[in-house]
Amino acid sequence: MLKVSIIGATGYTGIELLRFLIRHPQVEIKNLVSHSQAGRRITDIYPQFKGAGDFTLMDYDPEVISGSDLVFTALPHGISQQVVAEIYQLGIKVIDLSGDFRYRDISRYESWYELEHNYPELAREAVYGLVELKREEIKEAGLIANPGCYPTASLLGLIPLVKEEVVKRDSIIIDAKSGVSGAGKALKEPLLFNEVDESLKPYGVTSHRHTSEIEAVLEEFSPGGKEIKISFTPHLVPMKRGILATIYADLEVNISEEELINLYFKYYPAGGFVQVLPGKIPQTKYVVGTNYCHLGIKVDSRTNRVIIISAIDNLGKGAAGQAIQNMNVIFGLPEDTGLKATGIFP
Amino acid sequence: MLKVSIIGATGYTGIELLRFLIRHPQVEIKNLVSHSQAGRRITDIYPQFKGAGDFTLMDYDPEVISGSDLVFTALPHGISQQVVAEIYQLGIKVIDLSGDFRYRDISRYESWYELEHNYPELAREAVYGLVELKREEIKEAGLIANPGCYPTASLLGLIPLVKEEVVKRDSIIIDAKSGVSGAGKALKEPLLFNEVDESLKPYGVTSHRHTSEIEAVLEEFSPGGKEIKISFTPHLVPMKRGILATIYADLEVNISEEELINLYFKYYPAGGFVQVLPGKIPQTKYVVGTNYCHLGIKVDSRTNRVIIISAIDNLGKGAAGQAIQNMNVIFGLPEDTGLKATGIFP
Amino acid sequence: MLKVSIIGATGYTGIELLRFLIRHPQVEIKNLVSHSQAGRRITDIYPQFKGAGDFTLMDYDPEVISGSDLVFTALPHGISQQVVAEIYQLGIKVIDLSGDFRYRDISRYESWYELEHNYPELAREAVYGLVELKREEIKEAGLIANPGCYPTASLLGLIPLVKEEVVKRDSIIIDAKSGVSGAGKALKEPLLFNEVDESLKPYGVTSHRHTSEIEAVLEEFSPGGKEIKISFTPHLVPMKRGILATIYADLEVNISEEELINLYFKYYPAGGFVQVLPGKIPQTKYVVGTNYCHLGIKVDSRTNRVIIISAIDNLGKGAAGQAIQNMNVIFGLPEDTGLKATGIFP
Amino acid sequence: MLKVSIIGATGYTGIELLRFLIRHPQVEIKNLVSHSQAGRRITDIYPQFKGAGDFTLMDYDPEVISGSDLVFTALPHGISQQVVAEIYQLGIKVIDLSGDFRYRDISRYESWYELEHNYPELAREAVYGLVELKREEIKEAGLIANPGCYPTASLLGLIPLVKEEVVKRDSIIIDAKSGVSGAGKALKEPLLFNEVDESLKPYGVTSHRHTSEIEAVLEEFSPGGKEIKISFTPHLVPMKRGILATIYADLEVNISEEELINLYFKYYPAGGFVQVLPGKIPQTKYVVGTNYCHLGIKVDSRTNRVIIISAIDNLGKGAAGQAIQNMNVIFGLPEDTGLKATGIFP
Repeated sequence: MLKVSIIGATGYTGIELLRFLIRHPQVEIKNLVSHSQAGRRITDIYPQFKGAGDFTLMDYDPEVISGSDLVFTALPHGISQQVVAEIYQLGIKVIDLSGDFRYRDISRYESWYELEHNYPELAREAVYGLVELKREEIKEAGLIANPGCYPTASLLGLIPLVKEEVVKRDSIIIDAKSGVSGAGKALKEPLLFNEVDESLKPYGVTSHRHTSEIEAVLEEFSPGGKEIKISFTPHLVPMKRGILATIYADLEVNISEEELINLYFKYYPAGGFVQVLPGKIPQTKYVVGTNYCHLGIKVDSRTNRVIIISAIDNLGKGAAGQAIQNMNVIFGLPEDTGLKATGIFP
Repeated sequence: MLKVSIIGATGYTGIELLRFLIRHPQVEIKNLVSHSQAGRRITDIYPQFKGAGDFTLMDYDPEVISGSDLVFTALPHGISQQVVAEIYQLGIKVIDLSGDFRYRDISRYESWYELEHNYPELAREAVYGLVELKREEIKEAGLIANPGCYPTASLLGLIPLVKEEVVKRDSIIIDAKSGVSGAGKALKEPLLFNEVDESLKPYGVTSHRHTSEIEAVLEEFSPGGKEIKISFTPHLVPMKRGILATIYADLEVNISEEELINLYFKYYPAGGFVQVLPGKIPQTKYVVGTNYCHLGIKVDSRTNRVIIISAIDNLGKGAAGQAIQNMNVIFGLPEDTGLKATGIFP
Repeated sequence: MLKVSIIGATGYTGIELLRFLIRHPQVEIKNLVSHSQAGRRITDIYPQFKGAGDFTLMDYDPEVISGSDLVFTALPHGISQQVVAEIYQLGIKVIDLSGDFRYRDISRYESWYELEHNYPELAREAVYGLVELKREEIKEAGLIANPGCYPTASLLGLIPLVKEEVVKRDSIIIDAKSGVSGAGKALKEPLLFNEVDESLKPYGVTSHRHTSEIEAVLEEFSPGGKEIKISFTPHLVPMKRGILATIYADLEVNISEEELINLYFKYYPAGGFVQVLPGKIPQTKYVVGTNYCHLGIKVDSRTNRVIIISAIDNLGKGAAGQAIQNMNVIFGLPEDTGLKATGIFP
Repeated sequence: MLKVSIIGATGYTGIELLRFLIRHPQVEIKNLVSHSQAGRRITDIYPQFKGAGDFTLMDYDPEVISGSDLVFTALPHGISQQVVAEIYQLGIKVIDLSGDFRYRDISRYESWYELEHNYPELAREAVYGLVELKREEIKEAGLIANPGCYPTASLLGLIPLVKEEVVKRDSIIIDAKSGVSGAGKALKEPLLFNEVDESLKPYGVTSHRHTSEIEAVLEEFSPGGKEIKISFTPHLVPMKRGILATIYADLEVNISEEELINLYFKYYPAGGFVQVLPGKIPQTKYVVGTNYCHLGIKVDSRTNRVIIISAIDNLGKGAAGQAIQNMNVIFGLPEDTGLKATGIFP
């Protein structure tokens, strides 16, 4: 049994980790850490865990996590850096769900996050945990930078196009839509029910940080490491969970829809978490609560463009689910251990 | 391994049964039956099952279910009667999720459902599957009438009050609120998004069929079988899942809130699916996706009334979850086998 | 033209007042006052007012409202008292939308609001602005205490029953459900989209302040001023606007549904804002955005109970709409001036 | 007073027309026509009209609309053609809200709608009623083809870019999101609450009919009538009203954001229904219930792209509101007569 702790256990990502880990057959939860809620029982805050096992939340202390085989850190970026570095130096494996270790090129991080990075060497050691495309590196990793939610949906849809040079590098547009849980549990006016409900709004137009994360990873997969600049526009949708990325790119080569679908199946064989749905258009409702990514693929010969639709649960494949998938890979478990539950619908 | 079939597998209750049964460690799904969708694959209709095991839907035929140890019937009332009788005569155990076998007094059924009942003897044999209150009878049952969603929430809250004669028998009022999935997948104008969203409406005021189901079962628990007439008002809430029943009754005896809570704990010991939450007010969000019932208990000395709040998932404890709990009891399995998953929130 | 100012103009009630007043043919808006937003333009905060007339928000100062014929105060209770007293002493008519002046019996206010009242004499002078039932007093009023949202829905449904002694005084139960805008724009975790959406929850069970407001006004209408104690349970519904009160009471006299409907029509003649809908069950969607109250009336001979369903928009008839209706009465205008707009649906 | 009739009065567009027209100071409603609901009173179907004036719905007959100065036809495409032709031949002005008369090039209509057009000459006479860009033609029109909802949002955002050749003609991508009322009141499974709520889905990817309407009108404004092919992807959002179009195009010329905003102000001067919001990102909530279009304008020098955000109410500026604006222009009334109401928020 793996001994696992969660730091930042009471945010939405933290409780989603807990929800999955509680029924993971190879995991024993060691400690749940929450600075703001230390001393309270998790079931007092989240009654849904009654009957599933109870835990008293601890304040962070190296002592509290020592003895863990793995620690998940679900902290705000900026704050995560130091905690991760500290745990890593204790020889404990870490899966970090913040943005702090997702960049090898620290200057890109510093310019888009407007923050200094104090552990650039550790950042270079970290492995970007997009399992389907980095599996071998992850097996050896001591520190995983778990991908962002928008980048996960976007990159799973885009990497085959970029790596195979199917599309023009400068033509990529990602129009992404997210449920509100992607914004976390912060007390901000734009997250109030009365503000969100029955409205749709774009935000961070031309300036959202995930733009840089997507570009950095795409360039890594781009033959010759050629520079890639994308347009990325996130929108807030009046629903709790789910991300749908509608991805547009101009075709560079002549390829039919059928050929393109076959190409995607090479990257994502049937039976994995990334499911290519030939002839179907994904919707978020079919992935909510799961670690799946559904991909729809369209070639529009009229405009000579490809349109990829990618749907995930922002808290599942976009955060907690993928983190646990990374854990499974690191420890040599079947990749879907503890992640098989079917989504809830309706 | 139990061999289990579902008849009416593509309705909301059918797929919720499937969602739970797929991860039930003692169950092997034999056949999924759907008249309207026969020949299609379940994953073509509900992509969320991709990766969880695929099934081709069959049309109903005794042949199709023969060899099953148990059949769940999730059919409309009226239609269910004959199918259930047929399967029962084959010596297969049946858990029926319709209203057809919930009444021992057939005249009550016939008058509230405005339908003839063709199998009154079988109805008298059927056991009403409210597990926490009928466990011993269920163990021996060949046919379970799985309780209705509103009755489940209402009865779990009311039976201790009635059986212990804590409240005046003629003072019971149940004001119930349900998510829209309770109404099933029917193509009716009042179930369109534009009609339901951002509105609240009562329906079936003074005339909803579940009134009679609740009264019949309460009378069974009423000392001396004394007649009980209740007011029951359901409301449609703009959400997908969840029932919350707010129950009012005038106190017959002098009892403090603490004493009343202790009484409830006698009926529902800690660790079961019915959870008494002392000092807390239940909300539907903490039970969605689960087989739990959360109970809040208030004694209002100012008005000499007791107020019970009961929250369930109408598709969980109110339908599929409870059906599987019944199955576990019948076959001597731990009651929570396959039902341990934590609810999704947010 | 009446010169009108709003104090507390940027809360939900404040902007609803503004929305109505902008198209009121007899009103000229003098000043909009907001302490927190002083100096900003209303269209910078609420772009929906672009094109409708722009205003710069002022900080409160007696100077700012002098010259007004009427001031609406939409401030939190406790804070409202002093501002109202100050304006009133300037000889300006005031319609106060807080709870501060709704009680003639100050001890009741002080005990339920857990606050001291510093202007008890002014409170005794104030007229409770439930127009349909207090029209004559309102005509002469200098200070109107605009009724609370739950009390408005409840009292319009209950007063005919109480005044005519149709029901047992000690049997009244109000199960009320409200959209989230009733809670205002406060930055509180329970009002976040992720907390409210897809869930239903009761709150303030047995202890909500509006209980005392309803009781106080009912006693005023109760023959002989007999004491009335009610059970009142509010619930938060995942929608923005609308209150629906489901009211239960035991019949004291023998009366048919038809007779009871006729009784209601005597209180609420056709053509007014309170609309009796014979044979229909109200829903909130048909009153959203308006000053209407829809009433449904059921006599349940089986249980000898009456069930009244009352639907309003909490920001319309439950706040801003009724406040403007009060203004119209005070200044001798047709009662529906500026309030004729039809609700938006879907 | 203009005498006005509505054919197709009980659909969502029909009742939105009625909602606006009831308070239009120059309009007298002559007849409301509904084939399916003939003989019923509008207030029996839509109680929100109680108090606003009642009407008995008539079946269609030339007699019923004779004497009207103007008829709005809100019928399904295909069915509308003949009715419109018949009314037009009676010498009555018609504003048609279907797609039937929006194309001068009938072959384009026939290929995208997969329908024969029986009145091609009438279609060539019809004026496309995008008021801000066709005002002079509309003044003289006898038949207005009221623009589609997606085309309205898209074209208002795009025409300045295309007419001024600011962007590359082959680079235009419109990612559009709509509330559910855009799909009308049809009884279809994908429009059920349980299917739509808490999910986001694209539909009609590469094949939606509005693609061709947008292209046809853009080409009309394109210097030299040059061919334009766009990518247009609509998405269904779990909300009732509102369209937001996120429009991407590659810059053809060197232009700053400020210069571009000034260009837009030339097309849409302050005070009209199309409001340019410099430095702001539109949201649908601020236009719901109104005839406004909010435009946000971004130049992304990093990718050399322009991003236009356009928000309307699909039933307002996208249907009924614009239809009434057209009526005002035809009859020489101030353009905003009857259209001044502020949107409802929250």
